[in-house]
Amino acid sequence: MNKKLIFSTILKVVKAEAVLMLLPLITSLIYREQTAFYSFLIVLVSAYLLSFILEKLVKPTSQEFYSKDGFITVALTWIFVSLIGCLPFYISREIPSFIDAYFETVSGFTTTGASILSDVESLSHGMLLWRSFTHFIGGMGVLVFIMAITSKTTDRPIHILRAEMPGPIVSKLVPRSKDTAKILYIIYIIMTVLCVIFLLFGGMNLFESIVHALGTAGTGGFGIKNDSVASYSTYIQWVLAIFMLLFGVNFNLYFLLFVKKVGAVLKSTELKTYFAIVLISTITICINVYSLYGNFVNALTASIFQTSAIITTTGYSTADFNTWPTLSKTILFILMFIGGCSGSTAGGIKLSRVIILFKKFRFTLKKLLHPNSVSVIKFEGEQIEDKVLGEISNYIALYFICFISILLLISFNGFDFETTISSVAACFNNVGPAFGLAGPASSYADFSGFSKFILSIAMLMGRLEIYPLLLALIPSTYIKK
Amino acid sequence: MNKKLIFSTILKVVKAEAVLMLLPLITSLIYREQTAFYSFLIVLVSAYLLSFILEKLVKPTSQEFYSKDGFITVALTWIFVSLIGCLPFYISREIPSFIDAYFETVSGFTTTGASILSDVESLSHGMLLWRSFTHFIGGMGVLVFIMAITSKTTDRPIHILRAEMPGPIVSKLVPRSKDTAKILYIIYIIMTVLCVIFLLFGGMNLFESIVHALGTAGTGGFGIKNDSVASYSTYIQWVLAIFMLLFGVNFNLYFLLFVKKVGAVLKSTELKTYFAIVLISTITICINVYSLYGNFVNALTASIFQTSAIITTTGYSTADFNTWPTLSKTILFILMFIGGCSGSTAGGIKLSRVIILFKKFRFTLKKLLHPNSVSVIKFEGEQIEDKVLGEISNYIALYFICFISILLLISFNGFDFETTISSVAACFNNVGPAFGLAGPASSYADFSGFSKFILSIAMLMGRLEIYPLLLALIPSTYIKK
Repeated sequence: MNKKLIFSTILKVVKAEAVLMLLPLITSLIYREQTAFYSFLIVLVSAYLLSFILEKLVKPTSQEFYSKDGFITVALTWIFVSLIGCLPFYISREIPSFIDAYFETVSGFTTTGASILSDVESLSHGMLLWRSFTHFIGGMGVLVFIMAITSKTTDRPIHILRAEMPGPIVSKLVPRSKDTAKILYIIYIIMTVLCVIFLLFGGMNLFESIVHALGTAGTGGFGIKNDSVASYSTYIQWVLAIFMLLFGVNFNLYFLLFVKKVGAVLKSTELKTYFAIVLISTITICINVYSLYGNFVNALTASIFQTSAIITTTGYSTADFNTWPTLSKTILFILMFIGGCSGSTAGGIKLSRVIILFKKFRFTLKKLLHPNSVSVIKFEGEQIEDKVLGEISNYIALYFICFISILLLISFNGFDFETTISSVAACFNNVGPAFGLAGPASSYADFSGFSKFILSIAMLMGRLEIYPLLLALIPSTYIKK
Repeated sequence: MNKKLIFSTILKVVKAEAVLMLLPLITSLIYREQTAFYSFLIVLVSAYLLSFILEKLVKPTSQEFYSKDGFITVALTWIFVSLIGCLPFYISREIPSFIDAYFETVSGFTTTGASILSDVESLSHGMLLWRSFTHFIGGMGVLVFIMAITSKTTDRPIHILRAEMPGPIVSKLVPRSKDTAKILYIIYIIMTVLCVIFLLFGGMNLFESIVHALGTAGTGGFGIKNDSVASYSTYIQWVLAIFMLLFGVNFNLYFLLFVKKVGAVLKSTELKTYFAIVLISTITICINVYSLYGNFVNALTASIFQTSAIITTTGYSTADFNTWPTLSKTILFILMFIGGCSGSTAGGIKLSRVIILFKKFRFTLKKLLHPNSVSVIKFEGEQIEDKVLGEISNYIALYFICFISILLLISFNGFDFETTISSVAACFNNVGPAFGLAGPASSYADFSGFSKFILSIAMLMGRLEIYPLLLALIPSTYIKK
């Protein structure tokens, strides 16, 4: 393991994080929020200086970098970045408990959107912006970002891209990983700006528009009101619903659209399945909750909004879906696990994995019926290798094993069964709000410190797709053999 | 597909089932229960005659029998046997609704023990015995039973053994499948008789002893009292707890014990893990529920009883565990999925699969850390082939996909989330009682007809390990290509 190189990479990211804090710093300045301003200033300056000095002291002696180093770098970076990122909340006493501040920050970077704040409206503008900005940074990946702006041509980028980008198959759009990262970020920023513009048209002020666009882009879900986005107009709700869906799409497709390969985009199985699931879920929920709303437009708006918010694992809410009938809740619960498309900012298992798994089962049944038939499993026009197929079933089996282990740990908290199981699902899948006591109308404030710690790990596991975090957590990783 | 051979096999089983109905018939005679007696008589005679006549009419023209035929035979046999088996309940009007009678019978044969009866004490002795007898028949497998008593040496037995016996790897104890089936049944019967004797010593009458021993042997869980076994003595509860645990052990180990290979038994990883899980769960639950019982013996008795009843998927209860704290409920919920050892009468995923999966994850992490290391995954002293490993992850991924699909269908019922998710878990894993409205203090009576139908399929899927039932349910199985 190339410890020095890993350490210097983390330092680079922390330095970049410090620079990014300029944005909330300026916000605090504009809104004349003194405590927030000084909190950001202290963290910004000390994080920058410290990482600058340490970087000079620890020079990597070799550029060797293996797949394993990629995993560990990613895991440790996310843990550290969240540690630095939570300091402004803690120093300013806007979130007086350290574990709460850490939970909130991890929830931000992992684009979960689960909050321990029971009164989010009491937060300063600077902190609100920083909270949503962490969604944006975490959405596309903190390391991918650094890669896009700094890296040289080495082996490193692709290992990091693989470890940080969601989905079973990470393909480079262009030959160089650095350029791939750049293109992804450009698409990401353009779409976010578009979202801001659409929100401004709906009568939101600039601050509100930016905060909600950042939360939408990262499919995070931190809002600025205690009722999430319920009090905004129907227009705003539709804009957010549509943009959430767009950010749940594989970004490679936007690249293909950009290079005018519309045919390939329209042929995408994952895209078609994604919209089919959204459509069917919306209609079913709409019929199921119709009696609660009494008119078609309201029922439809609530259904499409919540379907989009949950399948993309954003977690904004316009309704207390905890009070919806069980059918709707079960659909939402299942959507939490499916998640968005791979290569998007969404969490969950990812649709492509679910599709490939279904194809594999059909294949297995076919093989049982016709043992001598020759056929292969194809996805998006390409044959899926047996190795990848094996990895996908492994991943899904591991996913449920981790889910169940976390469930066990959270059940020590003593909350009711529905709250317990849904809060684990909501954190592990990076959704945010759950059912019961952790429903959209309440918060994670009442969970114990231990539970908040475990749920933070669950959020990181979910965002980084398990392996990096598992590797970083087992001692034998650091022991030389 | 050899349709004629499949059909004639089913007929053979139905004929055997008719003969087995002599036992409840005699019971009805002893207790002078006229309606029950005539109901059994009508079903017995007509099922026997009909299958006898049809058998003469449909003569298999070939003895070709493939793996696929094994799966389909098993699935169709279980569906038909349950159809015949439910008739006495229905005809006697002791269970006046047909879907209820079918649900109850499927629950019996699949050794689930989920009941639609809110007042089981009103049932006649004959029906009570038949109900528990279905557990016993289904526990070791209806087809394995037929095999043990009739089959000739063909390819058929091993395909059936594979399709009907639980667990990832089915090994024959002795060269001939028929003899393997015989040995398994002999062990099974001896243990059941032992259980009867121990129960008699506890002051149960012969009828009670037999009924409870049958329910324990099949790890089913149908009782004869509305409070399951709560009103029996502590001695009886411990006897049942221990026998449930014993029936959750791989029967191959009893065979090894019988041929004096004690060393091999003691080395069994599955056995050691099984008892370790039981021990840890019991202790944790005991501490967790201590305050509800106020004294150590009662808390321990309740904990070990419920742990055994759930991990072996028997489902007897001595306490309304629905009212237990969430930690204990979560442990029970997880145990439902783990289930007993493979090659036992228990349901669930089976411990061996879970263990191998964990080994595989450790292996994957090791490979990530040391990509060039050479190692293999071993279980019970033998190397597990990649093919088997792949099948296990596939199976577990498929398991959760099926679980989620059934969950969605049951959520149409409109019960609360906890009832919905736990009832699906309890039926799919062949446990029986769940939480909420389907808890041990209540029944499945209030579920809709549609839900009862789906849960019946879920129980069959769980018992037959999914594939046979999936094959039997897809139309393309029956369409020639």
